[in-house]
Amino acid sequence: MLYFENDYSEGACPEVLESLIQTNLKSLSPYGNDSYSASAKEKIQKACGLKQSDIYFLVGGTQTNQTVIDAVLSPYQGVIAAQSGHVSLHEAGAIEYTGHKVLTLPQKDGKISAETLKDYVADFYGDENHDHMVFPGMVYISHPTEYGTLYTKNELKSLSEVCRHYHLPLYLDGARLGYGLAAENTDVSLIDIAKYCDVFYIGGTKVGALCGEAVVFTKNNTPPHFMTLIKQHGALLAKGRLTGIQFDRLFTDDLYFRISKRAIQYASQLKSALREKGYRFFIDSPTNQIFIILENHFMNQLKEKVRFSFWEKFDDQHTVVRFATSWATTQEDIDQLIEIL
Amino acid sequence: MLYFENDYSEGACPEVLESLIQTNLKSLSPYGNDSYSASAKEKIQKACGLKQSDIYFLVGGTQTNQTVIDAVLSPYQGVIAAQSGHVSLHEAGAIEYTGHKVLTLPQKDGKISAETLKDYVADFYGDENHDHMVFPGMVYISHPTEYGTLYTKNELKSLSEVCRHYHLPLYLDGARLGYGLAAENTDVSLIDIAKYCDVFYIGGTKVGALCGEAVVFTKNNTPPHFMTLIKQHGALLAKGRLTGIQFDRLFTDDLYFRISKRAIQYASQLKSALREKGYRFFIDSPTNQIFIILENHFMNQLKEKVRFSFWEKFDDQHTVVRFATSWATTQEDIDQLIEIL
Amino acid sequence: MLYFENDYSEGACPEVLESLIQTNLKSLSPYGNDSYSASAKEKIQKACGLKQSDIYFLVGGTQTNQTVIDAVLSPYQGVIAAQSGHVSLHEAGAIEYTGHKVLTLPQKDGKISAETLKDYVADFYGDENHDHMVFPGMVYISHPTEYGTLYTKNELKSLSEVCRHYHLPLYLDGARLGYGLAAENTDVSLIDIAKYCDVFYIGGTKVGALCGEAVVFTKNNTPPHFMTLIKQHGALLAKGRLTGIQFDRLFTDDLYFRISKRAIQYASQLKSALREKGYRFFIDSPTNQIFIILENHFMNQLKEKVRFSFWEKFDDQHTVVRFATSWATTQEDIDQLIEIL
Amino acid sequence: MLYFENDYSEGACPEVLESLIQTNLKSLSPYGNDSYSASAKEKIQKACGLKQSDIYFLVGGTQTNQTVIDAVLSPYQGVIAAQSGHVSLHEAGAIEYTGHKVLTLPQKDGKISAETLKDYVADFYGDENHDHMVFPGMVYISHPTEYGTLYTKNELKSLSEVCRHYHLPLYLDGARLGYGLAAENTDVSLIDIAKYCDVFYIGGTKVGALCGEAVVFTKNNTPPHFMTLIKQHGALLAKGRLTGIQFDRLFTDDLYFRISKRAIQYASQLKSALREKGYRFFIDSPTNQIFIILENHFMNQLKEKVRFSFWEKFDDQHTVVRFATSWATTQEDIDQLIEIL
Repeated sequence: MLYFENDYSEGACPEVLESLIQTNLKSLSPYGNDSYSASAKEKIQKACGLKQSDIYFLVGGTQTNQTVIDAVLSPYQGVIAAQSGHVSLHEAGAIEYTGHKVLTLPQKDGKISAETLKDYVADFYGDENHDHMVFPGMVYISHPTEYGTLYTKNELKSLSEVCRHYHLPLYLDGARLGYGLAAENTDVSLIDIAKYCDVFYIGGTKVGALCGEAVVFTKNNTPPHFMTLIKQHGALLAKGRLTGIQFDRLFTDDLYFRISKRAIQYASQLKSALREKGYRFFIDSPTNQIFIILENHFMNQLKEKVRFSFWEKFDDQHTVVRFATSWATTQEDIDQLIEIL
Repeated sequence: MLYFENDYSEGACPEVLESLIQTNLKSLSPYGNDSYSASAKEKIQKACGLKQSDIYFLVGGTQTNQTVIDAVLSPYQGVIAAQSGHVSLHEAGAIEYTGHKVLTLPQKDGKISAETLKDYVADFYGDENHDHMVFPGMVYISHPTEYGTLYTKNELKSLSEVCRHYHLPLYLDGARLGYGLAAENTDVSLIDIAKYCDVFYIGGTKVGALCGEAVVFTKNNTPPHFMTLIKQHGALLAKGRLTGIQFDRLFTDDLYFRISKRAIQYASQLKSALREKGYRFFIDSPTNQIFIILENHFMNQLKEKVRFSFWEKFDDQHTVVRFATSWATTQEDIDQLIEIL
Repeated sequence: MLYFENDYSEGACPEVLESLIQTNLKSLSPYGNDSYSASAKEKIQKACGLKQSDIYFLVGGTQTNQTVIDAVLSPYQGVIAAQSGHVSLHEAGAIEYTGHKVLTLPQKDGKISAETLKDYVADFYGDENHDHMVFPGMVYISHPTEYGTLYTKNELKSLSEVCRHYHLPLYLDGARLGYGLAAENTDVSLIDIAKYCDVFYIGGTKVGALCGEAVVFTKNNTPPHFMTLIKQHGALLAKGRLTGIQFDRLFTDDLYFRISKRAIQYASQLKSALREKGYRFFIDSPTNQIFIILENHFMNQLKEKVRFSFWEKFDDQHTVVRFATSWATTQEDIDQLIEIL
Repeated sequence: MLYFENDYSEGACPEVLESLIQTNLKSLSPYGNDSYSASAKEKIQKACGLKQSDIYFLVGGTQTNQTVIDAVLSPYQGVIAAQSGHVSLHEAGAIEYTGHKVLTLPQKDGKISAETLKDYVADFYGDENHDHMVFPGMVYISHPTEYGTLYTKNELKSLSEVCRHYHLPLYLDGARLGYGLAAENTDVSLIDIAKYCDVFYIGGTKVGALCGEAVVFTKNNTPPHFMTLIKQHGALLAKGRLTGIQFDRLFTDDLYFRISKRAIQYASQLKSALREKGYRFFIDSPTNQIFIILENHFMNQLKEKVRFSFWEKFDDQHTVVRFATSWATTQEDIDQLIEIL
């Protein structure tokens, strides 16, 4: 069986595992106060081109979105997100659970535009009844989006300008950030993200770590007592070393970027092959997720040899499915998959 | 420097790490639907002497307490706990954050008695205004307690009887359960706990794992859609394998019990030495936590050679401190510590 | 100045006020345990054609929606509502504040259709990832809607059938229920509503009372300890007599229906006049709210003589405004308004 | 039957009712934007001796406590209160429902002392683990307390000083404030309260109004968008006139103080008579609540002629009961009660 179901099917990338092994019996301070966490933060700050930042390691994506958004928003505020955003649809109401509405905007290829955002906020303040409504309090975007697409630097800049005009912190969910930064035609760097966003997270779980996401507050804007809030949300690891050591390794010798690049290269090979064989693409994604439309009977046959994800029903005879490459994908996997397809 | 600060200063116990290494590149289903998680659940169920159970793996203790308590309680209910309970004092309000009051009872050595509990609940229902008050909805105990003490089988049985009489689920926080089960004079087994409690968790973080706690619902009483609730609380690991593989190993060949036993033996050696040397004990704890009263000047000198925990101020000249052994403690550590003391 | 701004600009309808005066110095039990509340409940139950029901009086509409929806839903569930629903837009996030998502459906004239509802729920359960999403837990409709429109008996029946099929309680927000029941061509009676809905509320604030909404659980389905939940939501009146006395009078001698009918008759006169004079209607509403499109310059002139509500911008030159009649409207008001228009 | 059960058994005091009658058909702006609310705020501000203040009218006591406390606290903070405080015991967990812990202090006669408070906060910041605990965020006191007792001006001043030292807003629950200010030997005026407290509320429900509490922010310290937060908590009255008109009348011609004074005079007569007849007092309360210890058999006989409140069990043969006078008590009531006793 070949596995292209997602990018979190394997453990840690070998170098990361090696670091865990080597440090295993060292006695370290708990709750993120260890030297590896400190070192990881320095390396990440440097990679972001920042002189100052506050960095925290959380365990998973939904947890990170929940904790950050709840900490940044005031009680009368909600978070603006695309209708297709992970926080809008696939987090079991984790945002609402903390008391905040997700204010959804129409999306195109998983992205929201600066213009749509501006109109929404202007309309809100133009509405005479807005004191009876949920105030927009911050903006959530994902990069890559849930459809594997990417913002351009200009799009990010424009969003950022609207956000600053209306004092809305811009938050970027980078669950798959590595794959986004490694995409072939992107003009967005980690430094750009740190510049345009007020807070964002660098995903570890899907990019080489056993678990862990690195939250970066870029503008001296960490909510007061954020560590206590992390604890209150049940998100504070006793052995903070677990995430610290992993991110320390991921940000040593560009490991995070190198393993992401490899996954993108395999995805490109796969896309070329699919295109040559005449497969129909559902969306043109430049990252590690590939969405194609399969005839149902053929899809069921394929399932016997390779695991992929159901995405959505296309029509009565067809289904959209997703193939994902990752740091763990090998040339052999790709070759075998292309042979099968 | 010697480390006796806590029982979560090192990584994973070597056997557990070995399992993570061996399985690292296997492609496994996410969200706990992997074969290792399934195997771990079977082994735990067997160790608990249960024919049926629902077992879930969460990441840390506060998260587990928050998710389980919120899922078990109705909105008009609170959780009864000792004033010294972890949920009462040291979880940054994680329980209240989910909307529930912690209803505190007086404790003795960290424990609540069946009689105190019964009186409290009887008084509640005897109060003509109780519809304006928070209903008791479940009972939280820790075993070992925050003071390292243990319930006897009889105490557990009596608590359980009061709980059943009033339809209050009994929940046991077993963050250090291994050390409790391995204590020398305890008459409480894992099977007893599974019998008397409605839900409890077996701590991994402090007993040999990198992270992870195993929640056991013992009475066919899992809250509906508990997996969705875990997700909503930000507590669902994408790579559920991480906890599954670790617990699978911990419950193979009695590893969990063996490493706990060793920590208890080292604690016993340490206690004997302390007693001989005339140290003053703050409380008589049969598990891996030792609480002694140090003169402040001496304490500060000691700090230069060994790390231990500040517990509380005793008087102006003295402080209560805690030494903890763990699965990672070695005979060498103990010998050196005794020499220093 | 003429007042057509809304239907809650005046105090209580004179008969209701008279009852408050007559009972003012009677000593009555607090928290709704008084004889007037009991009598009001009996009368309402009878008017609903129910043999059994649980009726509670709350103070206002948002409070009622918040308390009922939160009490009916399980933590993993959200409430389905029209995008234009009051709970979706104009309650400052009161539903999300209690931890629940509002799951919005497209609306037509403020209404959701049984078909749209069915498709939504079927799609939800058809989605392989639905355990990671917010479960639909109940359905919220308003009658009259926010646009003053009404469901037909058939529409209500169809919605109810879909709800029962999927075990979704159907909840009707009747903030302006009197005006809906009194509309000229409606085939929906209070008895129908009690039959098709699982819980609904009869609005007092906008229909003759100083304050107060009567929540009716029609199917022996009151959430456990609902009175304690009301208290917990800050919604329990110490002087429950205030709402009890008012509803007792409103449901004596058909007062609630008679004052509603009168408001509808005045609205009809106004609509005829507007039609004759060539005004442009934004929507055809059969109840006490009339939505028309005014040229901005004319609108501003009109503002000097009559108060009405801004509804929304129509285009750069035009605005949608609302005129509302109520139990307090007089023939003289209508005559004067028609003269002005 | 005589009624001394509580101070909210009757409707509104006649002057207040008269104002409601006279204004009943006036068309007024909703949501507290009416002229009577504005006038009431001016009068209250003046009575408080303040040059600036923000005043809001809410409906009931629990609702007010819930909304104010939640709005003032940051998410990582709890509210400090006496163990016997209304928010601690008798609000069905309304504070915890909003996510905040009630941090209880020991009380004496229902009061907390500046010294106890100071020790608590100093201990908190002295605890090395306080980042894992709930931060004290404000202080709640009631005046009169739940036992009918009063703070002295010095006590209030000392509490205020500790609060300011630690940046803890001091909040006073004045559900029965009128009766406290009218007590015979108190040295605390409304002006003192406005000076020492950061926010407090003047109770209407128990002092002459049908419903309503006036929240006063005294230090230019209203939480941002407090009106939206009121709405979000389900606490915004559509007909804000209802509370505005009542408070406008209560603060005209010292009505609030005069009706309170009368209730205190009747309470004094009753206390003298009880003392002469040799009744045993449970606590010495200077306000309108009188707590006495009755032999159970006698208590049951008394119940046939007069209604009073069960307070708590004293011993197997005796019960603590409460008699309350109010603005509605008459000389005839008192004379009859004394005759019976």
